[in-house]
Amino acid sequence: MKYCSNCGESVEVRVPANDHLPRYVCPACDTIHYENPKLVVGCVPDFEGRILLCNRAIEPRRGFWTVPAGFMENGETLAAAAARESLEEALATVTIGSLLAIVNVVHAHQVHVMYRATLSTPSFGAGYESLAVALYRIEDIPWSEIAFPSVEFALRRYIEDQSLGVERLHCTDFDRPSWRRQTPG
Amino acid sequence: MKYCSNCGESVEVRVPANDHLPRYVCPACDTIHYENPKLVVGCVPDFEGRILLCNRAIEPRRGFWTVPAGFMENGETLAAAAARESLEEALATVTIGSLLAIVNVVHAHQVHVMYRATLSTPSFGAGYESLAVALYRIEDIPWSEIAFPSVEFALRRYIEDQSLGVERLHCTDFDRPSWRRQTPG
Repeated sequence: MKYCSNCGESVEVRVPANDHLPRYVCPACDTIHYENPKLVVGCVPDFEGRILLCNRAIEPRRGFWTVPAGFMENGETLAAAAARESLEEALATVTIGSLLAIVNVVHAHQVHVMYRATLSTPSFGAGYESLAVALYRIEDIPWSEIAFPSVEFALRRYIEDQSLGVERLHCTDFDRPSWRRQTPG
Repeated sequence: MKYCSNCGESVEVRVPANDHLPRYVCPACDTIHYENPKLVVGCVPDFEGRILLCNRAIEPRRGFWTVPAGFMENGETLAAAAARESLEEALATVTIGSLLAIVNVVHAHQVHVMYRATLSTPSFGAGYESLAVALYRIEDIPWSEIAFPSVEFALRRYIEDQSLGVERLHCTDFDRPSWRRQTPG
């Protein structure tokens, strides 16, 4: 951030009065420009025991597999965001189920929220952000080509819970980019 | 938003290519300025069956009571944010427990996340954003002077669960400003 979005003046970085962190502050109009973590919301869509995965058409992690997920928009709920992302990325209409995972992705300034979901029919396709979309049997999930740690976390917990016949909420934190960036094999 | 925070040019509102919603877009440098919901994180701090509430010193809802809660900062986890807010608003060091509530506050473009928490000693005070901080017995909670619906929701579910001896996660949505704005009595 270089300029004030309110008045166009150059911003400066300082700790405002009664605050404890440096912020972008406008010296002309006094607007404080806070920056806060964003919510990324998705789901694990299940059709008769197979899981719908999307091959990413965009960076980061183009060519790797993910569940449908993306940034929550103003004016929607978490569940509505998860359903919308499935429709956009996988052209799939899902029924959102229970909360599966909440992941603090600290270094990325994101919180990832993942739901269980079901597809009532095997109707899907590649949306604009996907190169391909496919239903994977559990034993065929391409673990070495999963796009993000939070997606692997959600998928593994989903499968574990299913084998136990339970639906739990799993929480974890990821910090620093320890996930090795590779080109898909 | 009137000016591009990247280059200072006046922004325009349009639907970018391959998008579906109007965004603030800079015609000079092509930066798309997305706006997304913010996370508000708090907790219900319990000391031997009494609950720590803060009387708000700032708008909105100055003079009304709340649990410690505020905007999550970049670089922290949800639980760390909840603990920090207790320290800032109530000068109280809490131990964060289980997830209590997730509330979509749709009209405010916020998601509120509330945890259970415990105080190990009755040590607290009014932080900068609080006029007063006090431990309330359940039967003395000033329900008519609670600042926000999400806070009332979290408190009521906390108390219900405690009476049942369970710790569940409760989710709900609030939309439109149906909460009547009054001056505190």
